Formats: sequence, structure tokens, C-alpha cells
Amino acid sequence: MLKTVNIGVLGCGNVGAALVELVRQRGPEILDRTGVELRVTRVAVRSLSKERGVELDPSVVTTDAHSVVTDPDVDLVVEAIGGIEPARELIATALKGHKPVVTANKELLANVGAELYADADAAGVDLLFEAAVAGGIPIIRPLRESLVGEDVSRVVGIVNGTTNYILTKMSDEGWTYAAALAEAQSLGYAERDPTADVEGFDAGAKAAIIATIAFGAKVVAGDVYHEGISNISPTDIEFAARLGYVIKLLAIAERFADGTVAVRVHPAMVPDEHPLASVRDSFNAVFVQGDAVGDLMFYGRGAGGFPTASAVLGDVVDAAANLAKGTHATIGSFGKAALRPVDDLVSPYYVNLQVRDEPGVLAAVAGVFGAHQVSIRSMEQEGLPEDESSDAARLIFITHAAREADVRATLHELRGLDSVTSVGSVLRVIGAE
Amino acid sequence: MLKTVNIGVLGCGNVGAALVELVRQRGPEILDRTGVELRVTRVAVRSLSKERGVELDPSVVTTDAHSVVTDPDVDLVVEAIGGIEPARELIATALKGHKPVVTANKELLANVGAELYADADAAGVDLLFEAAVAGGIPIIRPLRESLVGEDVSRVVGIVNGTTNYILTKMSDEGWTYAAALAEAQSLGYAERDPTADVEGFDAGAKAAIIATIAFGAKVVAGDVYHEGISNISPTDIEFAARLGYVIKLLAIAERFADGTVAVRVHPAMVPDEHPLASVRDSFNAVFVQGDAVGDLMFYGRGAGGFPTASAVLGDVVDAAANLAKGTHATIGSFGKAALRPVDDLVSPYYVNLQVRDEPGVLAAVAGVFGAHQVSIRSMEQEGLPEDESSDAARLIFITHAAREADVRATLHELRGLDSVTSVGSVLRVIGAE
Repeated sequence: MLKTVNIGVLGCGNVGAALVELVRQRGPEILDRTGVELRVTRVAVRSLSKERGVELDPSVVTTDAHSVVTDPDVDLVVEAIGGIEPARELIATALKGHKPVVTANKELLANVGAELYADADAAGVDLLFEAAVAGGIPIIRPLRESLVGEDVSRVVGIVNGTTNYILTKMSDEGWTYAAALAEAQSLGYAERDPTADVEGFDAGAKAAIIATIAFGAKVVAGDVYHEGISNISPTDIEFAARLGYVIKLLAIAERFADGTVAVRVHPAMVPDEHPLASVRDSFNAVFVQGDAVGDLMFYGRGAGGFPTASAVLGDVVDAAANLAKGTHATIGSFGKAALRPVDDLVSPYYVNLQVRDEPGVLAAVAGVFGAHQVSIRSMEQEGLPEDESSDAARLIFITHAAREADVRATLHELRGLDSVTSVGSVLRVIGAE
Repeated sequence: MLKTVNIGVLGCGNVGAALVELVRQRGPEILDRTGVELRVTRVAVRSLSKERGVELDPSVVTTDAHSVVTDPDVDLVVEAIGGIEPARELIATALKGHKPVVTANKELLANVGAELYADADAAGVDLLFEAAVAGGIPIIRPLRESLVGEDVSRVVGIVNGTTNYILTKMSDEGWTYAAALAEAQSLGYAERDPTADVEGFDAGAKAAIIATIAFGAKVVAGDVYHEGISNISPTDIEFAARLGYVIKLLAIAERFADGTVAVRVHPAMVPDEHPLASVRDSFNAVFVQGDAVGDLMFYGRGAGGFPTASAVLGDVVDAAANLAKGTHATIGSFGKAALRPVDDLVSPYYVNLQVRDEPGVLAAVAGVFGAHQVSIRSMEQEGLPEDESSDAARLIFITHAAREADVRATLHELRGLDSVTSVGSVLRVIGAE
């Protein structure tokens, strides 16, 4: 039985360096608890001269990542490079060489995960990726193992810390989107080009992975509908609060009774008393609804070198123990998910209109909703005294659950009404279906 | 490779019946995903005539539990009887017969878990118990596997739904303890004799299991210090709210830098913005603090037939897959934990005193705190106009972190002061250390 497991690490950025440090710190206790000794014997880096957050024995460092995955003395590979190539090719090579692989690479898994899962199954070794979704929060393992017997109907996640930080600042401090984004950038939470975070691409990749694991059906990043948060205004935040909601960017994966699946990312109004409403700052959380288990939520740090490396290390220990026992976890092979079109999804909506303050407007607007089978649950009207003409009013609607296509048709027709000055934000509402 | 796993179920109450039903409902998808076919082939019941929530083929039902665990055709045993005997003997017999066992029996594990873990390790089979703590919430598996590499310093749980329901009603509706308890009893959340719940015994058993798994050191129910909630008054709830806290019954397992461990259950004031503060009604949650991963929280249903059976089923699938592969999870053997005495624990405290409203009282009281090295963080004073003599006042203190023994000595001396009419509630405060 293999008791010492030699680890080859690809990439030594935040996550790779934190992992090397954690193996050093925690190795003795892991040996004590599991009987497996972990040793980092190879580390592939892009440049030998770069300063790193961890001390590395020069003899383990190389710039030739390929030599690490083919090294017969490396038993297990950790991929911490990110991006699709060369990560995909390196992981495939390692798996084909019967080396288990642990990765935190959401972009890779959300695009070509299925082929890598198949490689792992064919080679009879583990491909584990707890850290790819929601950083340090154990969510992939609970979905794959603890909830394997559960009929999971819906997973709703706050899986992007940058946008959650921005929305928290807008809600708590009354900041504008631009001010909150600038602060997130200065703190290093957001990139200089924040598109991947704020337009929902990052959350979408995680949603695709969650859906694949939760529903056992292949969903790729391109299948995920997404809207970002850059149009959320302080007015929306303020109205949400007044109505008892908070605005969050949600990744939602649903499976319907007919077996179809829908995966999407968009901002939504979350009721104050919903567990997701209290997830603040850069924290992440994943809310799971199952038929037998009811509601579950997993909360924690979604990013950062050490939280992410902690999740990677849990996978490394698991894969190492499996290697020692000559076994591996079965991921299974996934058929392509049957996707339900966004137009057919159903949700309550928040709609914010500016209208002329004149007789008959409400009746006209309500008539448009009714003509498209969109039923109104509540309405608030207020004058807009700041408007000098003083003939402007705001109408805030919350609808009952309505089909997306019907809501779009309603909005289209409302925009054509003379009495509607502008159609402001339109947001889905969760927790009130 | 064994592909069909025959399950013997001991006990067919809420959890046993829900499990049989879930295996029936979910079996085909589990087969599809894991390649393992689950069949419930034996069910031991106390009485053949009792009405059950699930239809059972009469040929599988028996009143002879022993015949189930020794049946050579039973591959895996689920224990859903509860209590220590005969559950202990049945589980030990099953394990010695090389049958993996899944149990939700917290009382058993918190008292004689270590000997059963040793039996399982010796036989080379699984003993899994996700459902023993916090019902349907995956917490044991994340602690054992995902966080195996993590230096967990503290676990704080709301692990008793009955008391959380009572405290929620007291906080939200202003009910008294007695009224909330009566409602919990009428809803079936609380037993007619509620002692096990309200005095913290149930939470204490779960805390012992959590500590054992999180710290890898054996803690038994008798090691757990506990205080219940029966003395919590509406006044305490009201003052907590005024100061920005909510009162929760917490199970706290801590490991200190010197390797000592402290495990205790008591009501505590939790800051409104802490994730545990928003865990309401009969929900449970377990908050984990790790060195690398930071703060994690796991939230969900802590009791109920189907949520509990969902967790049991996750374990059953895991144990069945391991059986098919000829492997098992390693629990490890645990040395006895070195316990830190309660007197040496350190926490901020809330202290509520009634005093005579006369000059010099505050100085006298503050002097007593100071003499015992208990430092005061904040104080509020208010008159008690409802008192006819009109010379009474209330003093509310929040201290800085102080040693338990010093706080007890302070309270003892305060009770001896002429100017102190009564010492009301004394509650620890978390999240402000």
C-alpha cells in the first residue's frame, strides 16, 4: 500500500503557494489521522525569478510543467494554473498516466469538464475539484456524496464574491455601483477589467459545474443565461429595501419535473428573512432545495489563496487515500442536459416604471400586464417631486410568478405607451414563488 | 464486484420508514448514477401490528432484530432504533460480521462511539453517522473529509431545533418561555418531558460527536458542560435585542493552542450580524472556524423523518459503493481528549443586576468587577418605575473577555452586597471576543 504520496503542483500563484504552505504545516497531522504522508516534490512555475509567498526548495521548481505531469515519481497532480490551455492538456496527460488530479479551475471544468471526467473514469483515478465552486466551501462533495440520494430540484448560489461585495456596499452604505466597483478594485477583489465578475461570466461557469454535479447532466458555460449587475441603481436598492428585499447576484440551477434543466445568472430580489439575504461582503453561499432534505445552505469564503487551498488540500488527502487503497471516486458519465429555454421560465418580477402623473395611467399600465397574463401582486405609486415638471410619478410593481416571455412582451408594450416615460429596472424576485 | 446491496433496517419509526420510502423512490436514479442497486430486504420492528407510514412487504418484516444483523444475505445495516441498548449490541454484532453500519443514533455515539469506531476499523467496514448531528445537514462528512487538512479551532452549532424554535418565538413574538414550550409541545417539536432538549443534553451529545470528529480526540457526552434555556426571560430577550444581539442555545467545541479541548452547551448572546443569528425556527446550523478556510456555516433541517433519512441514505450509498469496491472510509482511532476545565474558559459576559437606586451603588458594583479582573466593556442603567418603592434600578453590563472562574467569583461577591437586590441572568456573549 502506497503510504507516501508525491505531489506535483502546476502553478505557484496565490492558490499554489498557499497549498505548498498548508501541506508543510498540516502534513504531520494528516499523516497522523490518515496514515498518508504528503510530499510536494515538483512545482511548475512560469518564471524562476518571480518572488513567491512561499519558500520552495530550488530542486523541486521547474518551468517545464509537462515534465511534472509525466514524471514517474509524481503520484498526484494539483493544477493551479487556471484558464483552458495548457491546463486541459496537462490534466489530460496526467489522467492518462493514471495520476489523480485535483483542480480549482472552474473555467476549464465548465467548458470541457465532461471529457476530463471521462478521462479520469477511463484511467480509474480521481479528478476532484471542490475548490472550483465557492472556494473553501464544501459544496461539490456534499452534492456528489451526501446528497447522492436526494432529489435536488434547485440550487441557488451567491458564488461571486466581488459582486456580492459591490451589492453589499450599495445596500449598506448607499454607494453607487461605480463607487463600489472602484473600492472593490482598490481592494483587489475586482480586476481592472471587471467584466467576468460583474456581467456574470464567472458565476455562470460555477453554475454550470453545480448543475452538472447536482443533476447528473452535462451543462457547459455556454448553456448558462446571464445578466450582470452593472445596471443596478441606488434607486433599485432603495426600493428593494423598502419592500423587504435585498438585491443579490444569483446563480440558479433548476431541474423540473419533466427532467429539463435551466441554469442562469442574474440579479434578483431576495426577501430579508431568506438565509441568502444575510450573506454579506465577499462571502459566498449555496442554497440547496431537495425533496426529502428540505432547504440547506453552505456558507463561507468563496475566494482567496488559503480558503481555496484548504479545499484543494481536502481533495488531495481524499485522492491520496484512494490511491493508497487502490480505489477512486466515481464521477459517472453525463448525458447532455435537456435545457429549458429562458423564455419558458417562471418567476415573480419587480418592475419599476416612470409614468406621467395623469388620470387613467394606472388603468392603462395594468391593462398591459393583464393582456399578457402577468398578474400583479402589489403596486406602489409615488410622486416624483424632484422632477420640475411635477407631472411625473413612479409605479413599482411586484408580479405573481409569470413566464419570462410574457414579461418581456409586457415590457415591450409598456415602452410603447405614451404615458410611460421610461421602464427602469426589471428584476426577478425569489423566495416568493 | 458486488452490485446489489441488501439492506437490513433496524427500527421503522419516522426515520426508518422514511428511509424505506426514499430507497423505493430514489433507487433507480442511484443505480443509474453509482451502479449500485439498493434493496431493503429486512426490516426489524418492535410490533408487527403497528400502523406505519410506509408499506412493507410482510415477508421482509420481523420483530427479531438480532436475526437481521446476523442474516448472511444482509450486506449493510441501518440502525434507526435509538437509545444505547440494544442498538449498541446490534451494531457491534453487525460490524463484527463485516457488515457496514449506518446510524443516526447520537446518544449511542456520544457515549460509546469510540468502541464502535474501533470495531468498524478492526472489521474493515464503514460505520457512518452523518444523520446523528444536525439531521439532514451534511456536517460530519465535510469535517471528516473536506476539512481533513484544516486546522479547525472552533465549531459553534445551533443543533437543537426545539430550543431554537422556543427562542425564536420568544424573540419574534415576545412569548414567555412557558408559552413557547407549550406551543413546541403541541407541534410535536418538544417531548412531554422536554428536559433532554431544553437543558442541553441532546445538544451536548451532538457537541461530543462534533468535537471528536473535528479534533480527532475522543469526547463523550459526560465531558460536555451544559446549561439550558429554561431560565431565559422575556427581559433577557428584550435587552439582548436592544443591545444588538439575539439569544441562541449554542453547542461550542473549541481546541486551544496547547491541544486542550473544551466542549459546552449554553445559551449565549449572538450579534445580529453573525450568520448564526439568522437561523430561525427549528432550523439548525453549524458554524466552523478554520485557520486556512476562515468561517464556514452549514444550515438546514436538524430533525424530521425525511431530512434525517436523506442523510442516512447518503451514507448508505457511500457504504454500499465502498462495499462494492472492497474498501471503506477510515475513521481513525482517537485518544482521549485533554479537556480544559470550564473555570478556565474565557468569554465576554452579559450581566443583569437589580440594585437599589442610591448614590455609590455603581461604584461599589464596578469595584467588585475590578477586584476580580473582570473588565467592563459597556454598562446601561435604567430606573424600574414599575417597582412601587421606586428606589430600584437595573444595571446591564457587557464585560470584556473574562475567565469563567473570575466571573463566578464576581457574581458571588455581588450577591453579598446590600445594594444589589438580585443578580438576574448571566449570559456569555459570542462573536465579540
